[in-house]
Amino acid sequence: MISIDRLLPQWLRAYPRQHLSADVVAGLVVTILVLPQSLAYALLAGLPPQMGLYASILPALVYAWVGSSMTQAVGPAAITAMMTYSVLHPLAQAGTPHYLEMAATLALLSGALVFAFGMLRMGFLASLLSRPVISGFIAGSAVLIMLNQIPLLLDVPAAGVSTWAKLASVASQLQHLNSAALLLGGLTMVLLLLSSNGLAPMLISRGVAAQTSALLVRLVPLLIVLMSTFAVFVWELDARYQVKVIGKIQGGLPEISWGAIDLSESATLLIPALLLALIGMAQNIAMAQSLALKRREKVDANRELVGLGLSNVAASVFGGMPVGGGVTRSAVNLAAGAQTPLASIVAGLGMLAIVLVGPSWLERIPLAVLAGSISVAAISMVDQTEVRRAWVYDRADAGAFMGTALGVLVLGLAPGIALGIGLGLLTFLYRASTPHIAVVGRIGHTEHFRNMDRHGVETLPGVLFLRIDESMFFGNLLAIESRLLAEVTKAPELHDVVLIMSAVNRIDLSALEKLAEIEQDFRGRGVTLHLAEIKGPLQDRMLATDFWQTMRGRIHLSANAAFEMLQ
Amino acid sequence: MISIDRLLPQWLRAYPRQHLSADVVAGLVVTILVLPQSLAYALLAGLPPQMGLYASILPALVYAWVGSSMTQAVGPAAITAMMTYSVLHPLAQAGTPHYLEMAATLALLSGALVFAFGMLRMGFLASLLSRPVISGFIAGSAVLIMLNQIPLLLDVPAAGVSTWAKLASVASQLQHLNSAALLLGGLTMVLLLLSSNGLAPMLISRGVAAQTSALLVRLVPLLIVLMSTFAVFVWELDARYQVKVIGKIQGGLPEISWGAIDLSESATLLIPALLLALIGMAQNIAMAQSLALKRREKVDANRELVGLGLSNVAASVFGGMPVGGGVTRSAVNLAAGAQTPLASIVAGLGMLAIVLVGPSWLERIPLAVLAGSISVAAISMVDQTEVRRAWVYDRADAGAFMGTALGVLVLGLAPGIALGIGLGLLTFLYRASTPHIAVVGRIGHTEHFRNMDRHGVETLPGVLFLRIDESMFFGNLLAIESRLLAEVTKAPELHDVVLIMSAVNRIDLSALEKLAEIEQDFRGRGVTLHLAEIKGPLQDRMLATDFWQTMRGRIHLSANAAFEMLQ
Repeated sequence: MISIDRLLPQWLRAYPRQHLSADVVAGLVVTILVLPQSLAYALLAGLPPQMGLYASILPALVYAWVGSSMTQAVGPAAITAMMTYSVLHPLAQAGTPHYLEMAATLALLSGALVFAFGMLRMGFLASLLSRPVISGFIAGSAVLIMLNQIPLLLDVPAAGVSTWAKLASVASQLQHLNSAALLLGGLTMVLLLLSSNGLAPMLISRGVAAQTSALLVRLVPLLIVLMSTFAVFVWELDARYQVKVIGKIQGGLPEISWGAIDLSESATLLIPALLLALIGMAQNIAMAQSLALKRREKVDANRELVGLGLSNVAASVFGGMPVGGGVTRSAVNLAAGAQTPLASIVAGLGMLAIVLVGPSWLERIPLAVLAGSISVAAISMVDQTEVRRAWVYDRADAGAFMGTALGVLVLGLAPGIALGIGLGLLTFLYRASTPHIAVVGRIGHTEHFRNMDRHGVETLPGVLFLRIDESMFFGNLLAIESRLLAEVTKAPELHDVVLIMSAVNRIDLSALEKLAEIEQDFRGRGVTLHLAEIKGPLQDRMLATDFWQTMRGRIHLSANAAFEMLQ
Repeated sequence: MISIDRLLPQWLRAYPRQHLSADVVAGLVVTILVLPQSLAYALLAGLPPQMGLYASILPALVYAWVGSSMTQAVGPAAITAMMTYSVLHPLAQAGTPHYLEMAATLALLSGALVFAFGMLRMGFLASLLSRPVISGFIAGSAVLIMLNQIPLLLDVPAAGVSTWAKLASVASQLQHLNSAALLLGGLTMVLLLLSSNGLAPMLISRGVAAQTSALLVRLVPLLIVLMSTFAVFVWELDARYQVKVIGKIQGGLPEISWGAIDLSESATLLIPALLLALIGMAQNIAMAQSLALKRREKVDANRELVGLGLSNVAASVFGGMPVGGGVTRSAVNLAAGAQTPLASIVAGLGMLAIVLVGPSWLERIPLAVLAGSISVAAISMVDQTEVRRAWVYDRADAGAFMGTALGVLVLGLAPGIALGIGLGLLTFLYRASTPHIAVVGRIGHTEHFRNMDRHGVETLPGVLFLRIDESMFFGNLLAIESRLLAEVTKAPELHDVVLIMSAVNRIDLSALEKLAEIEQDFRGRGVTLHLAEIKGPLQDRMLATDFWQTMRGRIHLSANAAFEMLQ
């Protein structure tokens, strides 16, 4: 007999009673605070607003049950929404049934992929994306998101498919802008920027606890939405000033719509779904880890993927939109005092209640206000520190950031992220194929060998100590060979060369054969090649080879041993 | 005034008179010996036989002038011919004017690419192909070449485009096979196999010099061709027994046909041309190096590419076929005693003379004999040692060999090589993303630190020495982090962890940030993180970072220094 207990997630099996009230309160706070955001992200994805509400129910429950993070909240997220729109809008008219179908298919495909990666323990795939590439992608997407808000902020109808075409069309109709909408949107942005930069420090300096201040800051967007909607009601801004509002939200429970998924589109959507999956994985794991770090917990990357994947599959059931670990959503959850995923379950059920009640006031939230808050949220997504740090530390990483960001802006999100992955891998390969090789000598009468150019070292006449600072593989054979030959050619009095292998972690077959050739060549020049400090696993592998059996030089445990023998 | 001397290649400027007779003799020997081969490779490429002769003239002269290898001979080669056919036959009917046009365009494009790579000093691109991948590619191509000879050996017309379709069509018409052709082809193969395995040792055992024996073995294919052609003349095998012969060879000088190159096809041919260029580069450099090794000379990889590229451009001028460094051609050249590229110049001019005379007997060479000799040459191209060695040394390299060979057989040559490149890179990345991390301790009272599992070592209570045997980059962060956390979690009494960085050649920004997070996390657990033996270039880079400034542990010059301080 299977015990019911086994079906419960671990955190629930041993649920600490004292967390109950904190979790319930946090869950209710999250429900209300992320309400406007959920609507806004659905619109950003080109979907009807209620889709954002649906996507906050089932996926949140599933993730709470299966995921490994204690405080991450899953639901509609800015990047996944933007990515959904970016992938689908060239294929179908936003908002049409065909478009909804494709959104559900995209969620299902990417969810299934992420789930499969998790089950196959392929979480390491997420590490195909380096941090500068992720940051560059997010920065590029954030700028795209902001640019996409401009038509809503100005309340000018935008024609065209791509963001740039839309902006051009808006620019040509600037005379038709709606000042009431612009005023609302502008005010929203100013208030949010002020509150996000100044409110928390001000509250803290007045003696409010840090966590409470953080929560109050998170409350501002909701207050702005409430007040502006109140203004719409009181002054009839929508009727009198043509301020656009959300409009009809379909109430009641969504229909379960497996039928809406059209798998014949899957071929078209497979690559976008894969990229969405990769981005989702990388972002989710990174966020779960940074949240866990704050709370000293451990995250299981592969279980994270199983959770994220199943959430997206769940999202697709309600004909919904792809979901992800939301930055704001999780931050609100943490600030509201959530201790376990129970908070997310409460939030999901809370959203279900709202959907069932179907509060009609949501329909009169002005779009310009939502556009303003999305823009400000997008600004905060651009991680300027990362690119500055990358620039100082490593130009190649900075290049990967810029390349990915520009790729996203110019080519679109999916090609942009593909470009980023390519840039990251190329940089890595290029570096490995241009290895650092140092001529070293012994420091004083110690046993340490250091770079001759950096330290005053002792050398032996006719003996050259070279340290190869890279694994040897097919990609850097030519570089290593030409460096070795150059060293030998420039010193005709050499009779022994010692390669210090302390930093050579692997030698592939191509490199082994090249090494044998080099040894042969050296022998012809009257130079004996020795090896020192070979790594254990590498030595195991090399023992059986012809090279090892036939080489004339010796294998030394340490550079110092070689030094003493050749002295 | 530019001195004429500057325009001459270096070997010619200081040409040693005593080599003159050797080079002239070698050149003439090469001309005659590679004659049947040149015709056969043109047919293999789906081109008229005279194209193989043309491609042995100008390209050989250009390479002799520009290339860097002293003994490599460039001309029609098995792999380039097979690749040409494989790329072009789905696009046009072999032998048609359109097909010839595309062959010339392919030679021009791949030549221009190789030339550009050489001028831009991008010879390292050739190292995208590991040796197992190259060997696998050659093995797969060799099998394809052999399979393609079967219709000629049996003299059964083959329908269908792909090799497999052709074989199926041949199999269904086996009753129509021409026994005379099969006899000629089979005899050719048996004689060649016997001579290549037994003749040289036999001659040497009878006191013939090794080089002379090698040359005599190389002479056998020509003798077989001469005898079988003689048989055709005497017994009129072509008329009486329907044995297929080469047929009409257009005599005289080829027309210079820039006009035949249709650049509108270049988009279609660009990727194949790139792959052909890569294969040509990798094979050419590898062969030039192995020849140079035998003669203790140096090869300049980039000048090799300039030479190979210009040869192909030259090949395209005569409406010709792509050329490469030929294995047999170069072996014959070496065995015939060539000392400098003058031998190739003589061979090129010799071929020009043959083309001008246009010996009509060439037209009656039986195709089955050529097919037999191509098959035997293909068998010798399969490098069984390489795959056996790879299997013992490194299963992943063996997998790359098999994958590439199968890819070539099943998918075709261009997709096969692309698959090989992908497999090689994936293997490399996968290895780098699963780093070896060793717990180390000090050996006796030396200053050496070695793996605890392999050596009896001294440790300190509460202190863990870990050596990370891999550069840290975005791809292995997760693996490194989880290993470090696991080590710390399993020993709660730890208070200091020393990371020995002697094998960490680079840390990218993602890894640096992860390292900072780990340090932070360790600090929260009451564990201090130290670093030891950081590489000079890495330290330079890290000095300015926040991590370096704020970390609590110390940076030690050596693991031993850390050991003594923490003692």
